[in-house]
Amino acid sequence: MSLARLQRVAVLGVGLIGGSFARAIKQAVPTLEVVGLAREPARLSPAQAARVVDDCRPISPASVTDVDFLLLAAPVSATQAVLETLAPGFSAQVVLSDAGSTKQDVDAAARLALGARYPRFVPAHPIAGSEQSGWQAAQAGLFVGRRVILTPTPETDGAALALTRAVWEACGAQVSELGVHEHDAVFAQVSHFPHFLAYAYMQQILQAPNAATLLAQAGTGFRDFTRIAGSEPKMWVDISLANRANVLQCAQAFQASLGELIDLLQAGDSAALEARFTEISGARRTWHL
Amino acid sequence: MSLARLQRVAVLGVGLIGGSFARAIKQAVPTLEVVGLAREPARLSPAQAARVVDDCRPISPASVTDVDFLLLAAPVSATQAVLETLAPGFSAQVVLSDAGSTKQDVDAAARLALGARYPRFVPAHPIAGSEQSGWQAAQAGLFVGRRVILTPTPETDGAALALTRAVWEACGAQVSELGVHEHDAVFAQVSHFPHFLAYAYMQQILQAPNAATLLAQAGTGFRDFTRIAGSEPKMWVDISLANRANVLQCAQAFQASLGELIDLLQAGDSAALEARFTEISGARRTWHL
Repeated sequence: MSLARLQRVAVLGVGLIGGSFARAIKQAVPTLEVVGLAREPARLSPAQAARVVDDCRPISPASVTDVDFLLLAAPVSATQAVLETLAPGFSAQVVLSDAGSTKQDVDAAARLALGARYPRFVPAHPIAGSEQSGWQAAQAGLFVGRRVILTPTPETDGAALALTRAVWEACGAQVSELGVHEHDAVFAQVSHFPHFLAYAYMQQILQAPNAATLLAQAGTGFRDFTRIAGSEPKMWVDISLANRANVLQCAQAFQASLGELIDLLQAGDSAALEARFTEISGARRTWHL
Repeated sequence: MSLARLQRVAVLGVGLIGGSFARAIKQAVPTLEVVGLAREPARLSPAQAARVVDDCRPISPASVTDVDFLLLAAPVSATQAVLETLAPGFSAQVVLSDAGSTKQDVDAAARLALGARYPRFVPAHPIAGSEQSGWQAAQAGLFVGRRVILTPTPETDGAALALTRAVWEACGAQVSELGVHEHDAVFAQVSHFPHFLAYAYMQQILQAPNAATLLAQAGTGFRDFTRIAGSEPKMWVDISLANRANVLQCAQAFQASLGELIDLLQAGDSAALEARFTEISGARRTWHL
Protein backbone atom coordinates (compact mmCIF):
# COMPACT_ATOMS: atom_id res chain seq x y z
CA MET A 1 0.00 0.00 0.00
CA SER A 2 1.56 3.26 -1.01
CA LEU A 3 0.70 6.64 0.38
CA ALA A 4 -1.26 7.62 -2.71
CA ARG A 5 -3.49 4.60 -2.35
CA LEU A 6 -4.51 5.42 1.21
CA GLN A 7 -8.24 6.06 1.34
CA ARG A 8 -9.11 6.14 4.99
CA VAL A 9 -6.96 6.98 8.01
CA ALA A 10 -8.24 6.74 11.57
CA VAL A 11 -6.91 8.62 14.59
CA LEU A 12 -7.70 7.44 18.10
CA GLY A 13 -7.10 10.25 20.53
CA VAL A 14 -7.77 13.48 18.71
CA GLY A 15 -5.67 15.70 20.93
CA LEU A 16 -2.70 17.88 20.04
CA ILE A 17 -0.72 15.00 18.51
CA GLY A 18 -3.63 13.07 16.98
CA GLY A 19 -5.30 16.23 15.73
CA SER A 20 -2.10 17.59 14.23
CA PHE A 21 -1.44 14.27 12.55
CA ALA A 22 -4.96 14.37 11.13
CA ARG A 23 -4.45 17.84 9.71
CA ALA A 24 -1.00 17.00 8.39
CA ILE A 25 -1.92 13.78 6.60
CA LYS A 26 -5.02 15.36 5.07
CA GLN A 27 -2.83 18.16 3.77
CA ALA A 28 -0.38 15.64 2.31
CA VAL A 29 -3.04 13.40 0.76
CA PRO A 30 -6.12 15.60 0.14
CA THR A 31 -8.26 12.72 -1.17
CA LEU A 32 -7.90 10.95 2.18
CA GLU A 33 -10.79 10.60 4.60
CA VAL A 34 -9.70 11.06 8.19
CA VAL A 35 -11.85 9.46 10.88
CA GLY A 36 -11.63 10.35 14.53
CA LEU A 37 -12.30 7.54 17.00
CA ALA A 38 -13.55 8.36 20.47
CA ARG A 39 -15.51 6.77 23.31
CA GLU A 40 -18.20 9.37 22.73
CA PRO A 41 -18.03 10.32 19.05
CA ALA A 42 -20.39 13.24 19.60
CA ARG A 43 -17.65 14.96 21.61
CA LEU A 44 -15.60 15.10 18.42
CA SER A 45 -18.28 17.06 16.53
CA PRO A 46 -16.50 20.38 17.10
CA ALA A 47 -13.29 18.84 15.74
CA GLN A 48 -15.24 17.67 12.71
CA ALA A 49 -16.81 21.11 12.30
CA ALA A 50 -13.30 22.56 12.43
CA ARG A 51 -12.32 20.01 9.75
CA VAL A 52 -9.64 18.42 11.90
CA VAL A 53 -11.39 15.13 11.12
CA ASP A 54 -13.97 14.27 8.44
CA ASP A 55 -16.00 11.81 10.50
CA CYS A 56 -16.37 10.57 14.06
CA ARG A 57 -16.92 6.95 15.03
CA PRO A 58 -17.01 5.00 18.30
CA ILE A 59 -14.15 2.81 19.49
CA SER A 60 -15.52 -0.47 18.18
CA PRO A 61 -14.46 -3.08 15.61
CA ALA A 62 -17.09 -1.94 13.10
CA SER A 63 -15.43 1.47 13.00
CA VAL A 64 -12.17 0.18 11.57
CA THR A 65 -13.09 -2.43 8.97
CA ASP A 66 -12.53 0.06 6.13
CA VAL A 67 -9.50 1.78 7.70
CA ASP A 68 -6.16 1.54 5.90
CA PHE A 69 -3.99 3.20 8.55
CA LEU A 70 -4.69 3.86 12.22
CA LEU A 71 -2.74 6.13 14.52
CA LEU A 72 -3.13 5.43 18.20
CA ALA A 73 -2.54 8.76 19.92
CA ALA A 74 -4.03 8.06 23.33
CA PRO A 75 -2.17 7.68 26.67
CA VAL A 76 0.23 4.73 26.44
CA SER A 77 -1.49 3.02 29.36
CA ALA A 78 -4.64 2.68 27.24
CA THR A 79 -2.87 0.83 24.41
CA GLN A 80 -3.76 -2.76 25.22
CA ALA A 81 -7.43 -2.17 26.03
CA VAL A 82 -8.01 -0.06 22.96
CA LEU A 83 -6.26 -2.43 20.56
CA GLU A 84 -8.02 -5.44 22.05
CA THR A 85 -11.37 -3.75 21.44
CA LEU A 86 -10.58 -2.84 17.84
CA ALA A 87 -8.63 -5.95 16.84
CA PRO A 88 -11.56 -8.02 15.52
CA GLY A 89 -12.38 -5.26 13.03
CA PHE A 90 -8.98 -4.76 11.39
CA SER A 91 -8.51 -5.83 7.80
CA ALA A 92 -5.53 -8.01 6.91
CA GLN A 93 -3.91 -5.05 5.14
CA VAL A 94 -4.32 -2.49 7.89
CA VAL A 95 -1.24 -0.65 9.15
CA LEU A 96 -1.21 0.48 12.75
CA SER A 97 1.07 2.92 14.49
CA ASP A 98 1.16 4.94 17.68
CA ALA A 99 2.65 8.13 19.07
CA GLY A 100 3.71 7.15 22.55
CA SER A 101 6.80 8.43 24.33
CA THR A 102 7.63 4.92 25.50
CA LYS A 103 7.84 1.89 23.28
CA GLN A 104 8.50 -1.30 25.27
CA ASP A 105 5.16 -1.15 27.02
CA VAL A 106 3.30 -0.20 23.87
CA ASP A 107 4.97 -3.02 21.96
CA ALA A 108 4.16 -5.55 24.68
CA ALA A 109 0.54 -4.39 24.76
CA ALA A 110 0.29 -4.61 20.98
CA ARG A 111 1.65 -8.17 20.96
CA LEU A 112 -0.97 -9.24 23.50
CA ALA A 113 -3.86 -7.38 21.87
CA LEU A 114 -3.30 -7.87 18.17
CA GLY A 115 -2.41 -11.54 17.85
CA ALA A 116 -1.97 -12.30 14.16
CA ARG A 117 -2.18 -8.62 13.29
CA TYR A 118 0.85 -7.74 15.42
CA PRO A 119 3.27 -7.55 12.43
CA ARG A 120 1.09 -4.74 11.05
CA PHE A 121 1.89 -2.59 14.08
CA VAL A 122 4.79 -0.17 13.79
CA PRO A 123 5.59 1.51 17.12
CA ALA A 124 6.48 5.16 16.65
CA HIS A 125 7.55 8.07 18.79
CA PRO A 126 7.05 11.51 17.25
CA ILE A 127 9.29 13.99 19.06
CA ALA A 128 6.96 16.93 18.82
CA GLY A 129 4.52 18.83 20.87
CA SER A 130 3.87 22.14 22.49
CA GLU A 131 2.72 23.36 25.89
CA GLN A 132 -0.79 23.30 24.50
CA SER A 133 -3.15 20.37 24.36
CA GLY A 134 -6.37 19.36 22.71
CA TRP A 135 -7.49 19.26 19.08
CA GLN A 136 -8.04 23.01 19.17
CA ALA A 137 -4.26 23.37 19.21
CA ALA A 138 -3.79 20.94 16.31
CA GLN A 139 -1.51 22.23 13.56
CA ALA A 140 -0.71 20.63 10.20
CA GLY A 141 2.90 21.75 10.58
CA LEU A 142 3.54 20.30 14.05
CA PHE A 143 5.81 17.55 12.73
CA VAL A 144 7.64 19.51 10.06
CA GLY A 145 11.36 19.13 10.62
CA ARG A 146 10.73 17.14 13.79
CA ARG A 147 12.04 13.67 14.43
CA VAL A 148 9.94 10.54 14.47
CA ILE A 149 11.56 7.38 15.80
CA LEU A 150 10.15 4.09 14.55
CA THR A 151 10.94 1.00 16.61
CA PRO A 152 10.18 -2.00 14.39
CA THR A 153 10.83 -5.49 15.74
CA PRO A 154 11.94 -8.62 13.86
CA GLU A 155 8.27 -9.47 13.35
CA THR A 156 7.32 -6.13 11.86
CA ASP A 157 5.99 -6.40 8.31
CA GLY A 158 8.30 -4.62 5.84
CA ALA A 159 5.47 -3.05 3.86
CA ALA A 160 3.80 -1.82 7.04
CA LEU A 161 7.08 -0.26 8.12
CA ALA A 162 7.56 1.38 4.74
CA LEU A 163 4.06 2.84 4.74
CA THR A 164 4.45 4.14 8.29
CA ARG A 165 7.69 5.81 7.34
CA ALA A 166 6.03 7.34 4.27
CA VAL A 167 3.10 8.60 6.32
CA TRP A 168 5.28 10.37 8.86
CA GLU A 169 7.56 11.75 6.15
CA ALA A 170 4.47 13.09 4.43
CA CYS A 171 3.80 15.02 7.65
CA GLY A 172 7.22 16.61 7.24
CA ALA A 173 9.07 14.54 9.81
CA GLN A 174 12.61 13.15 9.74
CA VAL A 175 12.15 9.45 10.32
CA SER A 176 14.77 7.21 11.93
CA GLU A 177 14.77 3.83 13.65
CA LEU A 178 15.89 2.44 17.00
CA GLY A 179 15.31 -0.87 18.72
CA VAL A 180 12.39 -0.93 21.15
CA HIS A 181 14.57 -1.45 24.21
CA GLU A 182 17.27 0.95 23.08
CA HIS A 183 14.62 3.62 22.48
CA ASP A 184 13.37 3.41 26.04
CA ALA A 185 16.82 3.36 27.56
CA VAL A 186 17.91 6.35 25.49
CA PHE A 187 14.80 8.42 26.09
CA ALA A 188 14.84 7.66 29.79
CA GLN A 189 18.27 9.30 29.86
CA VAL A 190 17.66 12.29 27.63
CA SER A 191 14.01 13.02 28.32
CA HIS A 192 12.14 11.05 30.97
CA PHE A 193 14.68 11.28 33.76
CA PRO A 194 15.44 15.01 33.30
CA HIS A 195 11.70 15.61 33.70
CA PHE A 196 11.89 13.66 36.95
CA LEU A 197 14.86 15.76 38.08
CA ALA A 198 13.09 18.98 37.23
CA TYR A 199 10.01 17.87 39.19
CA ALA A 200 12.20 16.91 42.17
CA TYR A 201 14.01 20.24 42.15
CA MET A 202 10.78 22.24 41.80
CA GLN A 203 9.29 20.20 44.65
CA GLN A 204 12.29 21.08 46.81
CA ILE A 205 11.73 24.79 46.11
CA LEU A 206 8.02 24.53 46.95
CA GLN A 207 8.75 22.64 50.19
CA ALA A 208 11.19 25.34 51.40
CA PRO A 209 9.87 27.57 54.22
CA ASN A 210 10.86 30.62 52.14
CA ALA A 211 9.39 29.29 48.89
CA ALA A 212 7.72 32.62 48.07
CA THR A 213 11.03 34.48 48.33
CA LEU A 214 12.79 31.84 46.26
CA LEU A 215 10.22 32.07 43.48
CA ALA A 216 10.39 35.87 43.56
CA GLN A 217 14.18 35.84 43.16
CA ALA A 218 14.39 33.04 40.61
CA GLY A 219 15.66 34.14 37.21
CA THR A 220 16.37 32.87 33.73
CA GLY A 221 18.54 29.96 34.85
CA PHE A 222 15.70 28.68 37.02
CA ARG A 223 13.21 29.34 34.25
CA ASP A 224 15.03 27.21 31.68
CA PHE A 225 16.05 24.50 34.14
CA THR A 226 12.49 24.04 35.39
CA ARG A 227 10.58 24.57 32.16
CA ILE A 228 10.00 20.85 31.77
CA ALA A 229 8.60 20.72 35.32
CA GLY A 230 5.56 22.47 33.88
CA SER A 231 4.86 19.50 31.64
CA GLU A 232 1.49 17.76 31.67
CA PRO A 233 1.54 15.85 34.97
CA LYS A 234 -0.65 12.88 34.04
CA MET A 235 1.32 12.23 30.87
CA TRP A 236 4.61 12.32 32.73
CA VAL A 237 3.44 10.02 35.49
CA ASP A 238 2.29 7.69 32.71
CA ILE A 239 5.69 7.84 31.00
CA SER A 240 7.68 7.48 34.23
CA LEU A 241 5.73 4.38 35.25
CA ALA A 242 5.83 2.89 31.74
CA ASN A 243 9.60 3.33 31.63
CA ARG A 244 10.16 2.80 35.33
CA ALA A 245 13.11 0.42 35.23
CA ASN A 246 15.13 2.71 32.98
CA VAL A 247 14.20 5.84 34.92
CA LEU A 248 15.26 4.20 38.19
CA GLN A 249 18.56 3.17 36.62
CA CYS A 250 19.13 6.76 35.53
CA ALA A 251 18.39 7.93 39.05
CA GLN A 252 21.10 5.63 40.42
CA ALA A 253 23.65 6.83 37.89
CA PHE A 254 22.68 10.42 38.57
CA GLN A 255 23.08 10.10 42.30
CA ALA A 256 26.57 8.71 41.75
CA SER A 257 27.43 11.60 39.44
CA LEU A 258 26.04 14.21 41.82
CA GLY A 259 27.78 12.51 44.72
CA GLU A 260 31.15 12.82 42.99
CA LEU A 261 30.74 16.53 42.46
CA ILE A 262 29.46 17.02 46.01
CA ASP A 263 32.49 15.21 47.39
CA LEU A 264 34.81 17.47 45.41
CA LEU A 265 32.93 20.52 46.62
CA GLN A 266 33.04 19.32 50.21
CA ALA A 267 36.78 18.77 49.89
CA GLY A 268 37.22 22.22 48.40
CA ASP A 269 39.05 20.64 45.48
CA SER A 270 38.85 23.58 43.09
CA ALA A 271 41.34 22.16 40.59
CA ALA A 272 39.37 18.93 40.17
CA LEU A 273 36.05 20.79 40.02
CA GLU A 274 37.42 23.13 37.41
CA ALA A 275 38.66 20.24 35.30
CA ARG A 276 35.26 18.55 35.54
CA PHE A 277 33.22 21.67 34.89
CA THR A 278 35.45 22.63 31.98
CA GLU A 279 34.92 19.28 30.29
CA ILE A 280 31.18 19.28 30.97
CA SER A 281 30.68 22.86 29.92
CA GLY A 282 32.73 22.39 26.77
CA ALA A 283 30.68 19.36 25.77
CA ARG A 284 27.42 21.21 26.33
CA ARG A 285 28.55 24.20 24.29
CA THR A 286 29.60 21.93 21.46
CA TRP A 287 26.27 20.11 21.43
CA HIS A 288 23.41 21.42 19.39
CA LEU A 289 19.95 20.23 18.53
CA MET B 1 27.29 62.66 46.44
CA SER B 2 24.56 62.54 43.86
CA LEU B 3 24.73 60.89 40.49
CA ALA B 4 25.11 64.20 38.66
CA ARG B 5 28.14 65.08 40.74
CA LEU B 6 30.05 61.90 39.88
CA GLN B 7 33.20 62.81 38.00
CA ARG B 8 35.19 59.64 37.85
CA VAL B 9 34.08 56.02 38.03
CA ALA B 10 36.53 53.14 38.04
CA VAL B 11 35.83 49.57 36.94
CA LEU B 12 38.13 46.75 38.00
CA GLY B 13 37.59 43.78 35.71
CA VAL B 14 36.55 45.12 32.34
CA GLY B 15 34.76 41.99 31.14
CA LEU B 16 31.16 41.53 30.08
CA ILE B 17 29.75 42.90 33.34
CA GLY B 18 32.40 45.53 34.06
CA GLY B 19 32.47 46.66 30.43
CA SER B 20 28.70 46.85 30.17
CA PHE B 21 28.55 48.80 33.38
CA ALA B 22 31.16 51.20 31.99
CA ARG B 23 29.13 51.71 28.82
CA ALA B 24 25.88 52.06 30.73
CA ILE B 25 27.06 54.59 33.30
CA LYS B 26 28.79 56.68 30.63
CA GLN B 27 25.56 56.75 28.70
CA ALA B 28 23.64 57.80 31.80
CA VAL B 29 26.15 60.46 32.89
CA PRO B 30 27.99 61.59 29.72
CA THR B 31 30.31 63.96 31.59
CA LEU B 32 31.70 61.06 33.59
CA GLU B 33 35.21 59.73 33.07
CA VAL B 34 35.33 55.94 33.26
CA VAL B 35 38.66 54.40 34.18
CA GLY B 36 39.46 50.74 33.67
CA LEU B 37 41.78 49.14 36.22
CA ALA B 38 43.84 46.13 35.25
CA ARG B 39 47.03 44.36 36.24
CA GLU B 40 48.43 45.27 32.83
CA PRO B 41 46.69 48.47 31.76
CA ALA B 42 48.10 48.17 28.26
CA ARG B 43 45.86 45.14 27.73
CA LEU B 44 42.87 47.47 28.08
CA SER B 45 43.99 49.68 25.20
CA PRO B 46 41.63 48.03 22.75
CA ALA B 47 38.78 48.60 25.21
CA GLN B 48 39.80 52.22 25.42
CA ALA B 49 40.00 52.47 21.64
CA ALA B 50 36.48 51.02 21.51
CA ARG B 51 35.46 53.68 24.05
CA VAL B 52 34.34 51.15 26.62
CA VAL B 53 36.61 53.00 29.04
CA ASP B 54 38.22 56.43 28.78
CA ASP B 55 41.49 55.59 30.50
CA CYS B 56 43.43 52.58 31.78
CA ARG B 57 45.34 52.48 35.04
CA PRO B 58 47.18 49.83 37.04
CA ILE B 59 45.71 48.23 40.18
CA SER B 60 47.48 50.46 42.67
CA PRO B 61 46.44 53.01 45.31
CA ALA B 62 47.55 55.95 43.17
CA SER B 63 45.01 54.92 40.54
CA VAL B 64 42.02 55.50 42.80
CA THR B 65 42.73 58.68 44.75
CA ASP B 66 40.50 60.72 42.41
CA VAL B 67 37.84 58.02 41.98
CA ASP B 68 34.31 58.72 43.25
CA PHE B 69 32.81 55.28 42.63
CA LEU B 70 34.51 51.97 42.01
CA LEU B 71 32.88 48.82 40.70
CA LEU B 72 34.72 45.62 41.44
CA ALA B 73 33.78 43.23 38.66
CA ALA B 74 36.51 40.63 39.03
CA PRO B 75 36.13 37.02 40.24
CA VAL B 76 34.81 37.01 43.81
CA SER B 77 37.89 35.11 45.00
CA ALA B 78 40.05 38.12 44.10
CA THR B 79 38.06 40.54 46.26
CA GLN B 80 40.22 40.71 49.35
CA ALA B 81 43.57 40.95 47.58
CA VAL B 82 42.37 43.64 45.22
CA LEU B 83 40.70 45.74 47.88
CA GLU B 84 43.71 45.44 50.19
CA THR B 85 45.94 46.74 47.39
CA LEU B 86 43.72 49.69 46.59
CA ALA B 87 42.59 50.59 50.11
CA PRO B 88 45.35 53.10 50.94
CA GLY B 89 44.36 55.17 47.91
CA PHE B 90 40.63 55.58 48.52
CA SER B 91 39.30 58.98 49.45
CA ALA B 92 37.03 59.32 52.47
CA GLN B 93 34.07 59.93 50.15
CA VAL B 94 34.61 57.03 47.79
CA VAL B 95 31.75 54.60 47.22
CA LEU B 96 32.64 51.01 46.41
CA SER B 97 30.47 48.26 45.03
CA ASP B 98 30.89 44.90 43.38
CA ALA B 99 29.07 42.58 41.00
CA GLY B 100 29.67 39.17 42.52
CA SER B 101 27.16 36.34 42.48
CA THR B 102 27.90 35.60 46.13
CA LYS B 103 27.86 38.15 48.91
CA GLN B 104 28.95 36.63 52.25
CA ASP B 105 32.46 35.98 51.06
CA VAL B 106 32.72 39.35 49.33
CA ASP B 107 31.42 41.11 52.42
CA ALA B 108 33.86 39.28 54.68
CA ALA B 109 36.75 40.11 52.35
CA ALA B 110 35.72 43.75 52.23
CA ARG B 111 35.58 43.97 56.03
CA LEU B 112 39.12 42.62 56.28
CA ALA B 113 40.55 44.67 53.44
CA LEU B 114 38.91 48.06 53.86
CA GLY B 115 39.12 48.73 57.55
CA ALA B 116 37.69 52.18 58.21
CA ARG B 117 36.45 52.42 54.63
CA TYR B 118 34.23 49.34 55.00
CA PRO B 119 31.00 51.38 55.45
CA ARG B 120 31.59 52.84 51.96
CA PHE B 121 31.30 49.36 50.45
CA VAL B 122 27.87 48.34 49.17
CA PRO B 123 27.83 44.68 48.09
CA ALA B 124 25.76 44.20 44.96
CA HIS B 125 24.67 41.35 42.72
CA PRO B 126 23.52 42.34 39.25
CA ILE B 127 21.40 39.52 37.81
CA ALA B 128 22.48 39.92 34.24
CA GLY B 129 24.77 38.41 31.74
CA SER B 130 24.89 36.49 28.53
CA GLU B 131 26.71 33.44 27.22
CA GLN B 132 29.37 35.81 25.96
CA SER B 133 32.31 37.18 27.88
CA GLY B 134 34.90 39.90 27.61
CA TRP B 135 34.66 43.63 27.07
CA GLN B 136 34.02 43.04 23.36
CA ALA B 137 30.58 41.78 24.33
CA ALA B 138 29.88 44.79 26.59
CA GLN B 139 26.52 46.44 25.98
CA ALA B 140 25.14 49.62 27.54
CA GLY B 141 21.72 47.97 27.77
CA LEU B 142 22.81 44.79 29.58
CA PHE B 143 21.18 45.83 32.86
CA VAL B 144 18.04 47.45 31.49
CA GLY B 145 15.07 45.86 33.18
CA ARG B 146 17.34 43.43 35.03
CA ARG B 147 17.46 43.07 38.78
CA VAL B 148 20.29 44.22 40.98
CA ILE B 149 20.27 43.05 44.58
CA LEU B 150 22.09 45.21 47.10
CA THR B 151 23.05 43.60 50.38
CA PRO B 152 23.87 46.44 52.80
CA THR B 153 24.82 45.59 56.37
CA PRO B 154 24.13 47.56 59.57
CA GLU B 155 27.46 49.31 59.06
CA THR B 156 26.78 50.40 55.49
CA ASP B 157 26.80 54.16 55.06
CA GLY B 158 23.36 55.46 54.03
CA ALA B 159 24.69 57.90 51.45
CA ALA B 160 26.92 55.22 49.92
CA LEU B 161 23.89 52.93 49.68
CA ALA B 162 21.79 55.67 48.08
CA LEU B 163 24.46 56.46 45.52
CA THR B 164 24.96 52.80 44.65
CA ARG B 165 21.23 52.40 44.15
CA ALA B 166 21.17 55.51 41.95
CA VAL B 167 24.11 54.26 39.89
CA TRP B 168 22.50 50.90 39.15
CA GLU B 169 19.13 52.49 38.46
CA ALA B 170 20.86 54.82 36.03
CA CYS B 171 21.99 51.67 34.21
CA GLY B 172 18.31 50.73 33.89
CA ALA B 173 18.22 48.11 36.62
CA GLN B 174 15.48 47.37 39.16
CA VAL B 175 17.23 47.61 42.50
CA SER B 176 16.14 45.73 45.61
CA GLU B 177 17.76 44.69 48.89
CA LEU B 178 18.38 41.46 50.78
CA GLY B 179 20.49 40.60 53.77
CA VAL B 180 23.95 39.23 52.98
CA HIS B 181 23.23 35.79 54.40
CA GLU B 182 19.71 35.60 53.00
CA HIS B 183 21.04 36.50 49.57
CA ASP B 184 23.47 33.63 49.54
CA ALA B 185 20.95 31.13 50.86
CA VAL B 186 18.34 32.21 48.31
CA PHE B 187 20.69 32.26 45.34
CA ALA B 188 22.16 28.92 46.28
CA GLN B 189 18.65 27.52 45.92
CA VAL B 190 17.50 29.29 42.77
CA SER B 191 20.76 29.64 40.88
CA HIS B 192 23.93 28.06 42.23
CA PHE B 193 22.56 24.63 43.04
CA PRO B 194 20.60 24.22 39.77
CA HIS B 195 23.87 24.87 37.95
CA PHE B 196 25.42 22.10 40.03
CA LEU B 197 22.53 19.78 39.15
CA ALA B 198 22.82 20.58 35.47
CA TYR B 199 26.57 19.87 35.57
CA ALA B 200 25.95 16.58 37.38
CA TYR B 201 23.32 15.49 34.87
CA MET B 202 25.45 16.45 31.88
CA GLN B 203 28.38 14.57 33.44
CA GLN B 204 26.19 11.49 33.76
CA ILE B 205 25.32 11.70 30.06
CA LEU B 206 28.97 12.08 29.07
CA GLN B 207 30.02 9.16 31.26
CA ALA B 208 27.45 6.81 29.66
CA PRO B 209 28.88 4.18 27.27
CA ASN B 210 26.37 5.32 24.64
CA ALA B 211 26.97 9.04 25.19
CA ALA B 212 27.14 9.75 21.45
CA THR B 213 23.72 8.18 20.86
CA LEU B 214 22.27 10.03 23.82
CA LEU B 215 23.52 13.37 22.56
CA ALA B 216 22.23 12.60 19.06
CA GLN B 217 18.74 11.82 20.37
CA ALA B 218 18.53 14.62 22.91
CA GLY B 219 15.90 17.24 22.14
CA THR B 220 14.45 20.49 23.37
CA GLY B 221 13.80 19.28 26.92
CA PHE B 222 17.46 18.33 27.25
CA ARG B 223 18.52 21.57 25.63
CA ASP B 224 16.68 23.79 28.11
CA PHE B 225 17.43 21.63 31.14
CA THR B 226 21.16 21.63 30.42
CA ARG B 227 21.61 25.15 29.06
CA ILE B 228 23.12 26.31 32.32
CA ALA B 229 25.62 23.44 32.18
CA GLY B 230 27.28 25.41 29.41
CA SER B 231 28.04 28.23 31.82
CA GLU B 232 31.58 29.51 32.30
CA PRO B 233 33.25 26.74 34.30
CA LYS B 234 35.78 28.76 36.27
CA MET B 235 33.14 31.25 37.38
CA TRP B 236 30.84 28.50 38.55
CA VAL B 237 33.55 26.66 40.45
CA ASP B 238 34.30 30.02 42.09
CA ILE B 239 30.65 30.56 43.01
CA SER B 240 30.11 26.98 44.23
CA LEU B 241 33.14 27.16 46.51
CA ALA B 242 32.30 30.65 47.75
CA ASN B 243 28.78 29.54 48.64
CA ARG B 244 29.71 25.99 49.52
CA ALA B 245 27.79 25.58 52.78
CA ASN B 246 24.53 26.68 51.20
CA VAL B 247 25.05 24.62 48.05
CA LEU B 248 25.75 21.51 50.14
CA GLN B 249 22.59 22.14 52.15
CA CYS B 250 20.62 22.39 48.92
CA ALA B 251 22.14 19.12 47.77
CA GLN B 252 20.90 17.40 50.93
CA ALA B 253 17.40 18.79 50.54
CA PHE B 254 17.39 17.84 46.88
CA GLN B 255 18.43 14.26 47.52
CA ALA B 256 15.55 13.97 49.99
CA SER B 257 13.11 15.37 47.45
CA LEU B 258 14.37 13.14 44.65
CA GLY B 259 14.34 10.17 47.03
CA GLU B 260 10.66 10.71 47.80
CA LEU B 261 9.71 10.69 44.14
CA ILE B 262 11.93 7.69 43.44
CA ASP B 263 10.26 5.77 46.26
CA LEU B 264 6.83 6.54 44.84
CA LEU B 265 7.98 5.45 41.40
CA GLN B 266 9.50 2.27 42.76
CA ALA B 267 6.24 1.53 44.56
CA GLY B 268 4.28 2.20 41.37
CA ASP B 269 2.12 4.64 43.32
CA SER B 270 0.56 6.42 40.36
CA ALA B 271 -2.07 8.26 42.41
CA ALA B 272 0.52 9.79 44.73
CA LEU B 273 2.86 10.64 41.84
CA GLU B 274 0.03 12.27 39.96
CA ALA B 275 -0.94 14.35 42.99
CA ARG B 276 2.71 15.45 43.41
CA PHE B 277 3.33 16.17 39.74
CA THR B 278 0.04 18.05 39.44
CA GLU B 279 0.96 20.36 42.32
CA ILE B 280 4.51 20.86 41.06
CA SER B 281 3.51 21.40 37.47
CA GLY B 282 0.74 23.79 38.45
CA ALA B 283 3.15 25.88 40.52
CA ARG B 284 5.67 26.02 37.70
CA ARG B 285 3.05 27.07 35.16
CA THR B 286 1.84 29.80 37.48
CA TRP B 287 5.33 31.16 38.06
CA HIS B 288 6.77 33.72 35.72
CA LEU B 289 9.92 35.78 35.63
